[in-house]
Amino acid sequence: MSRIGNAQLKNKVMTAEEAAELINHGDKIGISGFTGAGYPKALPTAIANRAKEAHDRGEEFMIDLFTGASTAPDCDGVLAEADAIRFRTPYQSDPILRSKINDGTTYYMDYHLSESGLYVEQGFFGQMNVAIVEAVRITEEGHIVPSSSIGNNVEYLDNAEKIIIEVNSWQSEELEGMADIYRINRLPNRQPIPITAPEQRIGSTYIDIDLDKVVAVVETDAPDRNAPFKPVDETSKKIAGHFLDFLEGEVAAGRLTYDGYIMQSGVGNVPNAVMAGLLDSKFENIKAYTEVIQDGMVDLIDAGKMTVASATSFSLSPEYAEKMNNEASRYAKQIILRPQQISNHPEVVRRLGLICTNGLIEADIYGNVNSTNVIGSRMMNGVGGSADFTRNGLVSSFITPSDAKGGDISAIVPMVSHVDHTEQDVKVIITEYGYADLRGLAPRQKVQKMIALAHPDYRPLLEEYYERALKIAEEKKIMQTPHDLANALSFHQRFQETGSMKLG
Amino acid sequence: MSRIGNAQLKNKVMTAEEAAELINHGDKIGISGFTGAGYPKALPTAIANRAKEAHDRGEEFMIDLFTGASTAPDCDGVLAEADAIRFRTPYQSDPILRSKINDGTTYYMDYHLSESGLYVEQGFFGQMNVAIVEAVRITEEGHIVPSSSIGNNVEYLDNAEKIIIEVNSWQSEELEGMADIYRINRLPNRQPIPITAPEQRIGSTYIDIDLDKVVAVVETDAPDRNAPFKPVDETSKKIAGHFLDFLEGEVAAGRLTYDGYIMQSGVGNVPNAVMAGLLDSKFENIKAYTEVIQDGMVDLIDAGKMTVASATSFSLSPEYAEKMNNEASRYAKQIILRPQQISNHPEVVRRLGLICTNGLIEADIYGNVNSTNVIGSRMMNGVGGSADFTRNGLVSSFITPSDAKGGDISAIVPMVSHVDHTEQDVKVIITEYGYADLRGLAPRQKVQKMIALAHPDYRPLLEEYYERALKIAEEKKIMQTPHDLANALSFHQRFQETGSMKLG
Repeated sequence: MSRIGNAQLKNKVMTAEEAAELINHGDKIGISGFTGAGYPKALPTAIANRAKEAHDRGEEFMIDLFTGASTAPDCDGVLAEADAIRFRTPYQSDPILRSKINDGTTYYMDYHLSESGLYVEQGFFGQMNVAIVEAVRITEEGHIVPSSSIGNNVEYLDNAEKIIIEVNSWQSEELEGMADIYRINRLPNRQPIPITAPEQRIGSTYIDIDLDKVVAVVETDAPDRNAPFKPVDETSKKIAGHFLDFLEGEVAAGRLTYDGYIMQSGVGNVPNAVMAGLLDSKFENIKAYTEVIQDGMVDLIDAGKMTVASATSFSLSPEYAEKMNNEASRYAKQIILRPQQISNHPEVVRRLGLICTNGLIEADIYGNVNSTNVIGSRMMNGVGGSADFTRNGLVSSFITPSDAKGGDISAIVPMVSHVDHTEQDVKVIITEYGYADLRGLAPRQKVQKMIALAHPDYRPLLEEYYERALKIAEEKKIMQTPHDLANALSFHQRFQETGSMKLG
Repeated sequence: MSRIGNAQLKNKVMTAEEAAELINHGDKIGISGFTGAGYPKALPTAIANRAKEAHDRGEEFMIDLFTGASTAPDCDGVLAEADAIRFRTPYQSDPILRSKINDGTTYYMDYHLSESGLYVEQGFFGQMNVAIVEAVRITEEGHIVPSSSIGNNVEYLDNAEKIIIEVNSWQSEELEGMADIYRINRLPNRQPIPITAPEQRIGSTYIDIDLDKVVAVVETDAPDRNAPFKPVDETSKKIAGHFLDFLEGEVAAGRLTYDGYIMQSGVGNVPNAVMAGLLDSKFENIKAYTEVIQDGMVDLIDAGKMTVASATSFSLSPEYAEKMNNEASRYAKQIILRPQQISNHPEVVRRLGLICTNGLIEADIYGNVNSTNVIGSRMMNGVGGSADFTRNGLVSSFITPSDAKGGDISAIVPMVSHVDHTEQDVKVIITEYGYADLRGLAPRQKVQKMIALAHPDYRPLLEEYYERALKIAEEKKIMQTPHDLANALSFHQRFQETGSMKLG
């Protein structure tokens, strides 16, 4: 049976190449896609080819690309490779695009995932030209049933002048029912978001659109980018252990119950190890109100440890993606996919009392965190939703190995070279050496706890820095946040000069 | 007529000296008080005297002091002067306390005003021992009618083991009715906060307390700390003019209407100049959902330009404080005082669509803002509510003169020495040289706009820095946020060495 139920839209079916002809140089294009799930599979390559042809003719052809979050090699990758992205927001993780951002080809506005759609809605980016959104199917009424991510689909569909739909038959029709589409009224008529528990559905399972804006429908049959997770290593296991110790400490202090844990978790191998640790823990009836559902969460659901996972997208290994596609209607009882404006909304995050866990690039001895710019300048991925959750969670934690690049980069530094999470917001930091509970502490009270998290190779350097900083601060009576400005960024300078933060 | 209506509490009346005997070394004490309004007038001096006597005997005597925000010389000042404050949170602005923080006597945890009460409630500081709260009167039932600020009164009264009430007959009884006391349910039963417009009242005009916890009632008759505002100078006038230009631009772009402006404004002389500018503007029916009501807002109300001001405290000149005390019942129709957890709550701030305006210490060429630590180390006042509003406002702006200390400090620097507001959150920055609208821009796209805001004396230095940073970034392909790490903090180092950020 055709996945395009609406007659008017059936008339708009064409090839990706034909649809790409409707894209102009300079267009602001908002697409579906979040952590490799639900991005358009055909148009990006077709647009990239148009760009290459134009460039071969000596003409300009670049677009401004807006997404949910990261996409995939056959989306961000092909467009970046064709030098077709002038401006990109709000998040990316593609190796080619990253290199184009860092060589100056592409302007990248790293931005909070909860607010990027809102920004479009408020007109802060100017007029959006095209929305390209992947669907599982189009209903008879012309409603869009979104595929494996929701992201900013609603905001792009509502605000772009033209709409292109990709109907992807690789995506299971059983996904229908997982989405919970809810629009916040526009100003000045905003109302409270009526979510008081992660399991609540407050909207519809489809997105209603203005059919007259649809200029093309393209049929595809291609998989999401699904990458396997690395097996859990010793470092990750230790970090997960310390995280569980922290949770147990909260229970012991009477601030948490074994069935009261509502989880937010960043994406990656270490968070996945935390999930594995939870499988064997005393915690029960865990709920997730988070951005992305990864393998470990599916395991928790399968084991009966997690009762509900609310997110905006999947990020699964190929094996788990197949399982999800086959059994989506069963999982839909426990999984809800929401627009990222809702999954990451400060209002709901604050209300639910989340314990948040995200990764980082580096933290400093006062607990400031850099999540984005390596050595202050080179963009890694972006802030993503980490600040949406960190700022409003009940307890905001960060988990990270104590070093990187074979020991040449320390995750603990004297002063971070870029700040994404301020000292006020970072509550707990965890490495394989333990956890630092920074709550209720003034800056100087945090220092020894932070140094204890560092790799032993870096601890003497950090101690030495702090001693010098203290001496200066005592002398000058600037003791709130002692720093030795001449050496505050010395770890980073050394890395830039020698390739290692270690002394030669 | 007595201001103490309750018989049980009448029995607890004693002198401040007697009440201070109930305070122990090491106590965690939560007091009323916000920007010099509504703080206890007698106990702080009595406690300071106890501390001095203990110190004279060679005994330890220090308390951990929790407030709404800043207080006054006869509160923070006397306690700091007696070396009686071991730990202080969440905000202060007292000169003596500031010097004790910066000489290392006092640990200061600079924290978001919206969350400080929540933190107490959640037990993250451990058990609170004493609440000391100023009241206009105590009702027959034993309810507290708060005075000129609400702050964290509710959280301290609810969570401390012992309560001391100061009934201050200087405070007008007409203030009764201004307060709107609302408690958010504790986890896991939090519900949406039912505010969809600044003028809505959702609670009671008094605070109900556990009478059995009251150990003392002290009668006082002393004024709030009310300092006159400086006359509006030329620089402030220019800044206010650029802010109004920005607002007019929003109207021209169709993103704001002349009767749709909901204001949040930081405290100080420049914000007060902005209010004066609004008096003569086309904006009508202005509403404020903010932290503090200052003279300029009262003028806007009197002129019929502002229909409602919701805040948690007053910060008035002596002249205006007298007017408020005399006419409080009339103003109560347009003024609402809420707990700071509500006045600054991210949920409500986001929902209402505020245009936020706060001050800063320094901003860098990429739009990161430092609001707290001068030269990275010396605490000025604190982050206050600036992040509560900046993160969730519709548009978050910062206003500042381009330099300070007679030109020796530039408000625009290559890299800020401390970050309180990240590049993602800072939308507009304004100095006497214009406004920089940073919305929708990648870091490199912000630089020239930021340099144009700097004092002309500093522009060549900033240009030179950026050129060097660009050269390094081009070579190393780290172009997201170009920096020259060896010179990123050079303005600050120069100031520390020579007393000026200018070249010698």
